[in-house]
Amino acid sequence: MSIEKASPYNVEAVRDDFPVLGRTVDGEKLVYLDNAATSQKPQAVIDAVSEFYEGYNANVHRGLHKLSQEASEAYEGAHDKVAEFIGADGRENIIFTSNTTEGVNTVAFGWGMHHVEEGDNIVLTQMEHHSSLVPWQQVAKRNDAELRFLEVEEGLVKDGEVEEKIDEDTTAVSVIHMSNVFGTFAPVDEIIDRAHEHGARVLVDGAQSVPHASVNVNEMDADFLVTSGHKMCGPTGTGVLYGKTDALHETEPYRYGGEMIKIVEYDDATWADLPWKFEGGTPNIAGAVGLSAAVDYLEELGVENVHEHESAVTRYALELLEDDDEVTVYGPHADYDKERAGVISFNVSDAHPHDSSQLLSDQGIATRSGHHCAQPLMREMGVPATTRASFYLYNTYEEVDALVEGIETVKEVFA
Amino acid sequence: MSIEKASPYNVEAVRDDFPVLGRTVDGEKLVYLDNAATSQKPQAVIDAVSEFYEGYNANVHRGLHKLSQEASEAYEGAHDKVAEFIGADGRENIIFTSNTTEGVNTVAFGWGMHHVEEGDNIVLTQMEHHSSLVPWQQVAKRNDAELRFLEVEEGLVKDGEVEEKIDEDTTAVSVIHMSNVFGTFAPVDEIIDRAHEHGARVLVDGAQSVPHASVNVNEMDADFLVTSGHKMCGPTGTGVLYGKTDALHETEPYRYGGEMIKIVEYDDATWADLPWKFEGGTPNIAGAVGLSAAVDYLEELGVENVHEHESAVTRYALELLEDDDEVTVYGPHADYDKERAGVISFNVSDAHPHDSSQLLSDQGIATRSGHHCAQPLMREMGVPATTRASFYLYNTYEEVDALVEGIETVKEVFA
Repeated sequence: MSIEKASPYNVEAVRDDFPVLGRTVDGEKLVYLDNAATSQKPQAVIDAVSEFYEGYNANVHRGLHKLSQEASEAYEGAHDKVAEFIGADGRENIIFTSNTTEGVNTVAFGWGMHHVEEGDNIVLTQMEHHSSLVPWQQVAKRNDAELRFLEVEEGLVKDGEVEEKIDEDTTAVSVIHMSNVFGTFAPVDEIIDRAHEHGARVLVDGAQSVPHASVNVNEMDADFLVTSGHKMCGPTGTGVLYGKTDALHETEPYRYGGEMIKIVEYDDATWADLPWKFEGGTPNIAGAVGLSAAVDYLEELGVENVHEHESAVTRYALELLEDDDEVTVYGPHADYDKERAGVISFNVSDAHPHDSSQLLSDQGIATRSGHHCAQPLMREMGVPATTRASFYLYNTYEEVDALVEGIETVKEVFA
Repeated sequence: MSIEKASPYNVEAVRDDFPVLGRTVDGEKLVYLDNAATSQKPQAVIDAVSEFYEGYNANVHRGLHKLSQEASEAYEGAHDKVAEFIGADGRENIIFTSNTTEGVNTVAFGWGMHHVEEGDNIVLTQMEHHSSLVPWQQVAKRNDAELRFLEVEEGLVKDGEVEEKIDEDTTAVSVIHMSNVFGTFAPVDEIIDRAHEHGARVLVDGAQSVPHASVNVNEMDADFLVTSGHKMCGPTGTGVLYGKTDALHETEPYRYGGEMIKIVEYDDATWADLPWKFEGGTPNIAGAVGLSAAVDYLEELGVENVHEHESAVTRYALELLEDDDEVTVYGPHADYDKERAGVISFNVSDAHPHDSSQLLSDQGIATRSGHHCAQPLMREMGVPATTRASFYLYNTYEEVDALVEGIETVKEVFA
C-alpha cells in the first residue's frame, strides 16, 4: 500500500487504556468497529464513575451536606468542562440529556412546537438519523408545517439545494453534521448562513462529529447542537444539548418536574435559570462525572490528533475496500481528507449485510448491519441495509487488515 | 427506651457492602440520612457497571456482533427482572427512563395530553412531589382541564376527600404513593377503586415506596407506576415507568427518534412494539445493568426485611424526637407501623432548617433541608422548609442516636 501507517500518538498505549479491547470473542481477538453506535470507555472514565459511587454519591443541586456539595461541584463542573470542549460561552448553554435523541426532542418540542407555524417549512437533509427526523415530523404534523429535504448524492448535499430549499418561510433547520452512514459532512456553514439570512434557527446533530473532530459551536454559529456522551468515551445515558442563550430563553422546558422549577403553586409554576430549567428530575450524576473524565481523556490525547489518526485509518481502509470489485462502498470516492470521516458503509457481493456482519462477528470483528436509523436514506440508496465499519481513536491499521481478511471469508461463503 | 434495637438482618455486614459508608466527613464518621434524595450503592452494583464497561459494552437492540448480543441480553433481562420485582406481567410493561420525572412526563404528555379533555378534571394530592404535579399543570392548562387536590392533614389524605373529589369528570389521577416529606402513604387502594369506577386512569408515583416496601402493581391495579432506580441502590440516570398493556397502547411516545420506530418514511413513521416504543435513542445500558444488580441485592436481603428494619429504626427515631419539646415533627403522631415509613421531617426550635442541616453536616450527618420539591405543601404547612432525615436499609440505631445528639448541638447554638 502507498499509505504510511502512521499515527500522531502511540495507539498501542492508548489501547491499553481500554480494558474491553483486550478481550476475545469465541477465541478470536476482538476488533471493535461499531464506534458510530457507541464507543468503548477508558479505565479513567470507568474509575471516575466508580469513585463517585464509592466516595461522594449524593443528589445534587446544593444540598447542604458535604456529599451533596461535592457531588454538586462535580456535576456543575462537568457542564463547564463540556462548554469549554465545544467552545460554548459557559455552563448555562450546556444541558445534560440522557442521549442525543432527548436533546433533539427538547428542541423540537420545546422550541419547534412553539415557533414553527402553519405554512412554515422545516428543512432537513435526506441523510438525517431517525432521531433528528422523527421529532420534526411530529412538529410538522401538529403545526401544519412542511418538511423539506436537502437532497443528497453519494453522501453529499447536492449543489444548489441549500439555496433552493431554505427560504423566507423556513423557521427551523435540523441537520446532521456528520453522516452516520457515509461519514460525510453536511455543509453546515453554508446552511447556517442561509438559514440565518431568513431568520431561521438551526439545530446541528453533532452525535458523530463532536466525538471525532474539533467542533466549536460559537465559530459554527449553530443555535442548537446536540451530541452524545457515550459515543465520545463517556458513560451510557449521557448526552449534551447546547443552545445559544437567547435560543434557550425562547425554548419551553421539555421535562417538567423537580429541580427545574423556581416557584411552584398548586396551579402553576415558574422555571429555574439556565441550564437547570431543562434538567428536570435527578440527573445522571455519575454519568456527568464520567463524561467529564471522558473530555479530559480526549483533551489529553488531542481531538485534532484523534481526527488525524482516524482519517488515516479510514483512508487506508477505503483504499483497500475500493480496490475490491466485490465490495461496494457507499459515499464519495475521492478527496477522503475533506469529505470522509471514520465511517464506511459497504456491502459484499451478494451477501446480505446481516450475513456479512454475522460472519465477521464469528471472526471477532464487530460491525453493524442494518438501516443505521436512516430508513428513508436506505430506500433512496436502493439497498435494504448496509454493513458499517466505524473507527475510533484506538483502532489500528492491523484491525483494518483483519476487516479486509474477514471480508474475504464473506466472499468465499457467498461465492 | 422501650424499643428493642433489633433488625431482621446483620446491618453491620450490610454496611460493609456500601463503600461510601466507611468514609469520614471532615474527620467525622459519615451518617447518611438523605436516602429519600438518593440511596447509596452496594459494591455489587458498582462492580456490575464497571464489568459492563470492561467486558461487553456495546449498543443494544440486537446488533449482530457478539458484544451487542451480550449487552442486549443484559439490557432486556434487566426489564424482566424489574417486571418481576414489582409484580408486572412482563418486559413489555417496563420502560426504562432516566428518572422518575421522565416517567411522569411520559404519562402526562403521552397519555394525558391525548385523553384529558376540556372540562375534565385531574385529581392529585396536596402532597405531590413537583415531578408529579408540574407536568399535570401543563396538561390542565393546555387542555382546559381542572386540577383538583385531595386535602392532606398531618400527612394523611382527609376522610371523604377521595369520594368528594374523584367523580364522573375525572380522567386522570396522579398520586404519590409514599410522601417524601412525611413518610406517610396515600390510600392508593381506595383511590384506584374510586377512579376506576369512573373510568379514570391512575398513575402512582412510587419513587419513595418501591425502594422500601414490597409493591405489586397487579395487586394494586395501578394503570401506570413510576419509580426511581437511583433511590433503590441502582445507578443515577435510571428510572422505571410501568404501564398496563392497554394503557401503554393508548399512550403516544414521548421521545421520538431512533430505536423506538418500526418503519420510517420521510414524512411519517410507525412505532416499535412495547416497551421499546417509549425508549427512543441509546438507553442507559450500564444503568440498566446496575439496576438489575440492585434488584438482585434487594431481593437477596428481602424487601420485607428492609421495610421491617426501616420501620423499627424510624419508630426509634420518632420516639426520641417527639420526646423533645424543642423539635417539631411533621406528620401523624401515632400508629407508626401502619402510617409511617423511613422519612421524618422536622424543625428544631428557632433554627432555620438550613442552619440545622449545616450544623448537622459539620458533625458528619447528612440530612436535607428545603421544600423537598413540595413548595405548595410547605405553604399549606405554614413553614418555609423542613429538615428531613430519611433512612434506608443500612442505617442503624446508633446513627439515630448521632442525629439526636447532633440536634442537641443545633439547640445549643440557637438557645
